[in-house]
Amino acid sequence: MPDGYAALLNEEFERRWLSGDRILDAVCRHALAPGGKLMRPVLLLDSAVAVGGRVASVLPAAVGTECGHVASLVHDDIIDGDETRRGRPAVHSAYGMDQAIVAGDALIFFLFQCLADCRRTGVPEDRIVAALDVVARAGYDLCRGQSLESELRGDVSCSVDTYLTMIRLKTAALFRASCESGAILGQGTREWIGALARYGDHLGTAFQIHDDLLAYTSDAATTGKAAASDVRNRRLTLPVILAYQSADAADRARIEDIMAGAVAVEDAYTTMGEIIERTQAVPASRAMAWRNAEAAHDDLAVLPPSPSRTRLARLATLAVDRDR
Amino acid sequence: MPDGYAALLNEEFERRWLSGDRILDAVCRHALAPGGKLMRPVLLLDSAVAVGGRVASVLPAAVGTECGHVASLVHDDIIDGDETRRGRPAVHSAYGMDQAIVAGDALIFFLFQCLADCRRTGVPEDRIVAALDVVARAGYDLCRGQSLESELRGDVSCSVDTYLTMIRLKTAALFRASCESGAILGQGTREWIGALARYGDHLGTAFQIHDDLLAYTSDAATTGKAAASDVRNRRLTLPVILAYQSADAADRARIEDIMAGAVAVEDAYTTMGEIIERTQAVPASRAMAWRNAEAAHDDLAVLPPSPSRTRLARLATLAVDRDR
Repeated sequence: MPDGYAALLNEEFERRWLSGDRILDAVCRHALAPGGKLMRPVLLLDSAVAVGGRVASVLPAAVGTECGHVASLVHDDIIDGDETRRGRPAVHSAYGMDQAIVAGDALIFFLFQCLADCRRTGVPEDRIVAALDVVARAGYDLCRGQSLESELRGDVSCSVDTYLTMIRLKTAALFRASCESGAILGQGTREWIGALARYGDHLGTAFQIHDDLLAYTSDAATTGKAAASDVRNRRLTLPVILAYQSADAADRARIEDIMAGAVAVEDAYTTMGEIIERTQAVPASRAMAWRNAEAAHDDLAVLPPSPSRTRLARLATLAVDRDR
Repeated sequence: MPDGYAALLNEEFERRWLSGDRILDAVCRHALAPGGKLMRPVLLLDSAVAVGGRVASVLPAAVGTECGHVASLVHDDIIDGDETRRGRPAVHSAYGMDQAIVAGDALIFFLFQCLADCRRTGVPEDRIVAALDVVARAGYDLCRGQSLESELRGDVSCSVDTYLTMIRLKTAALFRASCESGAILGQGTREWIGALARYGDHLGTAFQIHDDLLAYTSDAATTGKAAASDVRNRRLTLPVILAYQSADAADRARIEDIMAGAVAVEDAYTTMGEIIERTQAVPASRAMAWRNAEAAHDDLAVLPPSPSRTRLARLATLAVDRDR
C-alpha cells in the first residue's frame, strides 16, 4: 500500500474516534486499533483512483469498509470463542460479551454513517445511493456466509462447491463491495465498475482459501490467532475438505472423529496436519487459491493502466503469498 | 394504526422474506414474526404522509426501520439472557447464540438495503442520502444507549438526567429517526422535518418511561416478557431511581442489595415492588412520561392538519396509556 494511504486512513480514523469518552468509544477504538492489513480500505481507494476518482472524496467510505469488516471480526470472535485477535485480547475478552455485541453493531452503523459523509467530500448523491445498495447487500451476504458456516460446522461431507459458496459470501462479498463501491463513488463507467466487482470477488476467494491454509503452513505467532481455532470450532476449510475426499478409510474415520469434536484439540490439530500432509491437500488448495488470484489479475485488463491498477494486480499476488 | 398500513407492511415483509430457504432466512423470519406493535414503521409512514409524501414511496424504509428495531431486540435478549419475546422463544433460545448474533447483524444490513430500495419507489437520491445519515447516526446512538445501560447496571446512585440521556439514546433515537427520515423521504420542508424529529424524541422518551413502568403495573402474560427481567439484570429504570431517591435508610439499603445482585430474583422483584409502592415512584414516573407525551403532542402543531397528524397525536397518548 502506498505510504500516503496508510497515513490518510489513520488520520481519518483518529479524527472520527478521538472525541468519545464513553465505554463504547473505547471498545470501538480497541477493535479498530492498528495492526490490521487495511486490505478493504486500500482496495476501495485504489478502485476509486483506478477509474479516475479522487482519494479525498472516497476516504470516508474507505474508513467505513474497515469498520464493517472489524464489526464482523468482533462478532466472529464471540461466536468462535477466540480470545486473541492480531496478538491482542479479543474485544469480548477485554470488555465482556455485552459490550462486544453492541460495539459490533455500532461499527456497522458507523460504516453507513461514513458512506453518507461522502456527500461532504463531493460525491454525487446518485453514486452514494448506488454504493449504499452494494454495501448493504454485501453485508447481508456476509451474514449469510457466517450463518452458513455455522450450519456446516463439522459436516465433513461438504462439497468444494458449497465451501466456495460459503467463502464467497463470508469473505469475498465485502472485498467485492469495497472494490465495486470504490469504483462507483470514484464515478467509474459501468464496464469498469463491473470489472472491479469481479476482481474483488476473485481476490476475496483467493484470500480466504489462503487464509484457511495458514493454519497448516504458518504458526500462531505469525498469524496472530490461535492456529488450532479452526479445528476447535470444527470449521470447514478447504484443506480439510480436500483431505477428506482423498483420504483412505482410516484417515477418513479420524477426520470424522475430529470434526465431530470427539478428539482433544491439541491432538486433533496434530493429526489433522498429518492427514493433510499425507493427502497433499495443501498444494491442491494452494492451486485453487492461485487460480482465483490469476482470474482477479485478468479482471483488471479492461482498466486503463495506472499506478492504482498496478497495485491492485500486486494485491492479487500478495493475497496468496503471505504468511499472516 | 389504519388497517391499510398493517396490510401493506405485512405484504412488504412477506415479499422480501419468503424466498430464502437458508437458516439465516428462517432466523430472521422468526425474529420478525407478527406480534410487534410496528410503532416505528407506522411513525415513519405517518410522518411521510403528514408532510405530503406517498405511502408507496416510503414503504421500503418503513419495513427497514422495523428491521433495525428487531435487530436490537435480538441482541438485547442475548445480553439480558431473556428467553422469551412477545410470548415466543427469543431468537437465541430457538436457534442458538451464534445464529442470533448473525441474524441481528443481517437485519441491520437489511435496514440499509431497504433504504436504498427507495430509489425504485421514486424518492429522489438527495433525500435518500439525507435519510441514510439520520438513520445511521440514530443506530449508532442506539448502541451508545445500550452500552451506557450496561455501564450503569446496578448503579443506584444514577441521576434522573443520566437515565434520561440513556433512554433518549437507547429508545428515542430510533423513534426520532423513524419520524425524521419519514419526513425527509416524504419530501417535507426543513421546518416540518425538525418538528417531527422533536416529536419522535419526546414520544420515544415517553414510551420508554412507560415501558419501564409496565414491570410494576402489568403482568408478564400481558407484556409478553418476564417482568422480573429488569430486576434480574439490575437494569436501572425510572421507578427504581426515584424510589431510591426518596426512600428511607432501610429501603435504600434494600435497593442497594437488590441492585448489587445479592437478593434472589423473586424476592428482589417483590421487595422492589413494595418499596416503589411506598415511595410513590409509579405516579412520579407516570407524570414524567405524560410530560413528554404532551411535548410530543405540541411538536405537531406546526404541521398542517391531516388524518396522519391526528394519528400521530393519538400515538403520543397511546405511548403512555397501554398495558403492553
